[in-house]
Amino acid sequence: MLIVGCGPAGLTLAAQLANFAEITTRIIDAKPGPMEKGQADGVSCRSMEMFQAFGFAHKILREAYWVNETSFWRPDANDPTRITRSGRVRDVEEGLSEMPHVILNQARVHELYLDRMRNAPTRLVPQYGTRFAGLSIDEAAGSHPITVTLENAETGTAETLRAAYVVGCDGARSAVRRAIGRELRGESANQAWGVMDVLVDTDFPDIRLKSLVQSQEAGTALIIPREGGHLVRFYIEQDKLAPGERASDRNITLDQLFDRAQRIFAPYRLELRDVVWWSVYQIGQRLTDRFDNLPDDAGPEAVPRVFIAGDACHTHSPKAGQGMNVSMGDTFNLGWKLAAVLRGAARPALLRSYSEERQGVAQDLIDFDREWARIISARDAEGGDTPGFQKQFIRQGRYTAGVAVQYAPSLITGPARWQGRASGFEIGTRLHSSPVIRLADAKPMHLGHVVEADGRWRLFAFAPANDPTAPNGALAQLCDWLQRDAASPLLRHTPPIRISTRLSTCAPCCNRATKR
Amino acid sequence: MLIVGCGPAGLTLAAQLANFAEITTRIIDAKPGPMEKGQADGVSCRSMEMFQAFGFAHKILREAYWVNETSFWRPDANDPTRITRSGRVRDVEEGLSEMPHVILNQARVHELYLDRMRNAPTRLVPQYGTRFAGLSIDEAAGSHPITVTLENAETGTAETLRAAYVVGCDGARSAVRRAIGRELRGESANQAWGVMDVLVDTDFPDIRLKSLVQSQEAGTALIIPREGGHLVRFYIEQDKLAPGERASDRNITLDQLFDRAQRIFAPYRLELRDVVWWSVYQIGQRLTDRFDNLPDDAGPEAVPRVFIAGDACHTHSPKAGQGMNVSMGDTFNLGWKLAAVLRGAARPALLRSYSEERQGVAQDLIDFDREWARIISARDAEGGDTPGFQKQFIRQGRYTAGVAVQYAPSLITGPARWQGRASGFEIGTRLHSSPVIRLADAKPMHLGHVVEADGRWRLFAFAPANDPTAPNGALAQLCDWLQRDAASPLLRHTPPIRISTRLSTCAPCCNRATKR
Repeated sequence: MLIVGCGPAGLTLAAQLANFAEITTRIIDAKPGPMEKGQADGVSCRSMEMFQAFGFAHKILREAYWVNETSFWRPDANDPTRITRSGRVRDVEEGLSEMPHVILNQARVHELYLDRMRNAPTRLVPQYGTRFAGLSIDEAAGSHPITVTLENAETGTAETLRAAYVVGCDGARSAVRRAIGRELRGESANQAWGVMDVLVDTDFPDIRLKSLVQSQEAGTALIIPREGGHLVRFYIEQDKLAPGERASDRNITLDQLFDRAQRIFAPYRLELRDVVWWSVYQIGQRLTDRFDNLPDDAGPEAVPRVFIAGDACHTHSPKAGQGMNVSMGDTFNLGWKLAAVLRGAARPALLRSYSEERQGVAQDLIDFDREWARIISARDAEGGDTPGFQKQFIRQGRYTAGVAVQYAPSLITGPARWQGRASGFEIGTRLHSSPVIRLADAKPMHLGHVVEADGRWRLFAFAPANDPTAPNGALAQLCDWLQRDAASPLLRHTPPIRISTRLSTCAPCCNRATKR
Repeated sequence: MLIVGCGPAGLTLAAQLANFAEITTRIIDAKPGPMEKGQADGVSCRSMEMFQAFGFAHKILREAYWVNETSFWRPDANDPTRITRSGRVRDVEEGLSEMPHVILNQARVHELYLDRMRNAPTRLVPQYGTRFAGLSIDEAAGSHPITVTLENAETGTAETLRAAYVVGCDGARSAVRRAIGRELRGESANQAWGVMDVLVDTDFPDIRLKSLVQSQEAGTALIIPREGGHLVRFYIEQDKLAPGERASDRNITLDQLFDRAQRIFAPYRLELRDVVWWSVYQIGQRLTDRFDNLPDDAGPEAVPRVFIAGDACHTHSPKAGQGMNVSMGDTFNLGWKLAAVLRGAARPALLRSYSEERQGVAQDLIDFDREWARIISARDAEGGDTPGFQKQFIRQGRYTAGVAVQYAPSLITGPARWQGRASGFEIGTRLHSSPVIRLADAKPMHLGHVVEADGRWRLFAFAPANDPTAPNGALAQLCDWLQRDAASPLLRHTPPIRISTRLSTCAPCCNRATKR
């Protein structure tokens, strides 16, 4: 199993696979070492739920900036040279997730993944300074049909290895994507933006809130406070680009960026104290049509061998904070499937659902991003008490929280006809955790947090009140049936070897707990 | 500043003083190194609040067993040879504290203190293998009137040092207490108990709950589950001792202890799988009359120079889990006062309030412990639906949570005539934290958690709704007055040197924040 690239997508995959001692995983990156300073930093509620399954959400909760409310500013109707607050709203709808939306530097997220990998059963550590140079597939060559060529990034020395699967998490210029003949398609918009992480002295009252500020003449700004309580990220809209012009042609300076920020925030005082990083970029939305190496006319049992994920599949603007999240979501989807197939617990055809599910998610992302970019730059046409961007922000809340993803019926997602059995839990969506009290020790906890990213399936059985402790209650009977009856799915679907299943309740004392 | 003893009392004091670079603190212990296995493990809500102020409560919340509910068992009325559950109640009354009551091995608590000391400005590390041998005080000898003799615990080599203050946290056989001529007074009860940390296989349904079990013939047992999800502590009542007899005279074996436990828990099955530690002890309640070296007839400006704390002042039974908590409470009270005096921010007379306040707390503890021991061993006389020990447990809930302490009016505690200004907050009690939303970044947090154990005073000002952001609102005016007016207590009571005060709001962005 070879993973190319140590970005969020590659590390999410590696952190999952590192758990399985019986899978040999290798992860490479052309860079000489771990990322020291990253630019992605928005972590959606859904990604936090995923970090919980990886066991490090509690660290992020302590370290990150929490995006709890977002404020909106626009030109004052009485004096449009001054901005005024049009609203301050919850960033995440009440009850959408048990996790907040947070901001934390990407480099720290990488570090937490690397920690988990290092402490996992396989003690997985990336091989840096190694470049992917090419691959060939010989389906007749047994369990490891892919021959990959790697290169030392400094010396150019080549190395060859054989792999069962290869996953390209190697960014927008992905060499793995090129090797399987896929392309990013789409266009660059003619809108340039400046971005800077700065320390400012200001009397703008919402400097510690995510704020969208639309000025009359100077354009739009978005501010996102950083973790640690001091720095703030500014996104500053620039003048439209001419057709064919690139943002880099403009030679925009930091002074120009900050000068425009000052004009947008008038009448508030904004003084620059320190700059950690800044850049100018233009928006583009590009997408590839498939996330694996299968031809569109592949037969139903054809098995994909090479996958791509993250920026290798989709690129878009950073302002809605979706990039890192959707990339991690790609490989969180792929990881358990690869593990199940490699451990003999699932048919290889399961791997086809990866591209089917995630390409659709990426298409939604591209559409969302284009619409959001348009609205943010549009002068307000809707008018009224609430500006258009504020209305749109509220409309898209579930989407940006990462909880709107719903997979279609497939090998692993049941059809709608069973929906009536669980009216509160839409089939194809993620498990929405609920606070519960654990019976054995009366501990308040989150039901969803017993689900760890370990590749195991969980069965939640909801017993009638007072049933759980009854020796012959419904729950006890269910457990008996699962464990002994010939019709039990546990017995029918558990392969005889290579995988350990465990039937247990979440209480450490349950006498019914057994190991098979 | 010399601290004798690295138990909970000594480490609480050292962790506070380690914060002040201008105070030279030394802490010694006769043992060769840090505790590896401790027997105290109950951490009250109030102690958790204190750990929060020290910055490590979050680690304990993750690692500890949470005592959320307590169950009560007694002989079944229809068949008194079998126990039956008489109730299952909340261990801590709703809203009493934002912190749970938890169980964590004492050695881990020590480790967290040692971490904090090591990372504090003074990088304080205990000097192990060093014994306190004696002291003499010469009040005419300036700022460091105490001459202390220390001994190397192995070689006996003596060392002499001079200290401004000495605090004896050296346990029930305290050498510091002896040096100032004080004694523990009280008596041993004729009740022996066995205690064991064990792994059991059982069908007793409340094995993961703190449970008080009173049997018809075999006596009473208390079980307290341990952190980690596997071990359980059993306290097992033994037959009454004859007058003058000691528990150790009985030569009680582990088999006898466990056999009695099995009889108490009948008809439930109890099988021993592993024993980590066990012991037999007898209850005694002893107390000293003063916690410092002042004679009772000392003049009003006399300054105590030597203090004692924790087990050096009070010993009692372990079953209500109070010992470690009251000991830490002693030095948490003393620590900030010593720091204030040593840094020139308070008159030395402040130090007299330590013994006044804590001796009363210890007296309450002794009284409580005697009553609880009596009720736990008494056959139920009250009868009725709820057994006597269950009623008493509920009555004493605020006390065992550690939040019932109320100090009398003194140099630092105002008289009752101002109580009307804050009807929800009894003068002389600890600040009961409340959940709040921080205005600047809309973050849900606990008001009490902005109070760190750093020796600073906090002023909480509650502004009218919508006032905080008003440039000339009540809050802004108060801040101005505090900072500039000649009548401002900040200006009147802040000494010109040696201490840094900081006027700030809890929002990192407040423009009014200043340093003086």
